[in-house]
Amino acid sequence: MLNLHAPTPDTWIAKVGGSLEELLLDHAHCEKKAAGVAMNLLFSYVDHPDLARAMTAIVREELEHFELVLGKIQERGWPWRKLRPSAYGERLHGLIRREEPAKAVDRLLVAALIEARSCERFGILRDNLADRDLAAFFGSLYESEARHHGSYVQLAQLFAPRDEVRRRLTELAEAEAAIIMEGEPLARVHS
Amino acid sequence: MLNLHAPTPDTWIAKVGGSLEELLLDHAHCEKKAAGVAMNLLFSYVDHPDLARAMTAIVREELEHFELVLGKIQERGWPWRKLRPSAYGERLHGLIRREEPAKAVDRLLVAALIEARSCERFGILRDNLADRDLAAFFGSLYESEARHHGSYVQLAQLFAPRDEVRRRLTELAEAEAAIIMEGEPLARVHS
Repeated sequence: MLNLHAPTPDTWIAKVGGSLEELLLDHAHCEKKAAGVAMNLLFSYVDHPDLARAMTAIVREELEHFELVLGKIQERGWPWRKLRPSAYGERLHGLIRREEPAKAVDRLLVAALIEARSCERFGILRDNLADRDLAAFFGSLYESEARHHGSYVQLAQLFAPRDEVRRRLTELAEAEAAIIMEGEPLARVHS
Repeated sequence: MLNLHAPTPDTWIAKVGGSLEELLLDHAHCEKKAAGVAMNLLFSYVDHPDLARAMTAIVREELEHFELVLGKIQERGWPWRKLRPSAYGERLHGLIRREEPAKAVDRLLVAALIEARSCERFGILRDNLADRDLAAFFGSLYESEARHHGSYVQLAQLFAPRDEVRRRLTELAEAEAAIIMEGEPLARVHS
């Protein structure tokens, strides 16, 4: 369903489980970033009303999540601050082809894969965090990430036939899995 | 309350009243643009949690309005399309000072003035359009534009003392009034 080609390595939960403050700060910035990506897609492809409506819904939902995470951070008395992101998003964006309509397909599929990975990881956090309040919080976000993944994959079919979208999704999912297997030392949602 | 230094000339309602399709298309793009501006402010000044929360609320509301206008356009069977904008927004953005924190003050005050002008004009449309459905629709958006104006002016005080914000608001409102008095031939929300 999520089209991920490799599961998150076990080392990840050990890494972020001990750095909840950093994880939540990064998570807040990821929700903001996800809203920004959807807004950029709305601006780029506004002549497709179906895409425009789907993007407004996603922007609004991501910003709701951003506020929820901000609330969790403030609840715990952790200072709100900027944070160096993982390289994951930038590396995936580097795979986007430059020419339209391939560019549109790739932008949507990269967004789809980021949602899928977030979804998988929120499930891991829900099932493994000793902090039950945060575990439940991540669990509550699981479903919307899965839904966003599906929307993005479907919207890619506005710009290429279904078979071509599936083929490209497989390619990008392979690349995404390689980045995830490589890992990163920082405690981040996508490290 | 709206800090506008000149009322909309009577010629404007005559111009847009006869071009409702263009007016609504432009209005939809303006709501999208307003959401984009608030999103950019969120990204630029995310270290201010009060501003971040205010921006998420404004982005979400502008996107709701965008969808509502899109609905009105589709209801009437008008084809959805891109449209050349008026020069108003670009001319106002040209007045923004380049160095922080003056830049933040100006970005917020320019946004405030655009909301104020929209508010005034939605009131004019509400009171003057023969098309009562659209008149009521514009009337329903009036209050939120006024509220956004107030929020932006208040947020500018995160970056400069109140007196300085008022002084700069007066300057920018003078410039905005001059652009409005000059007018533009296109039938647009801000022409």
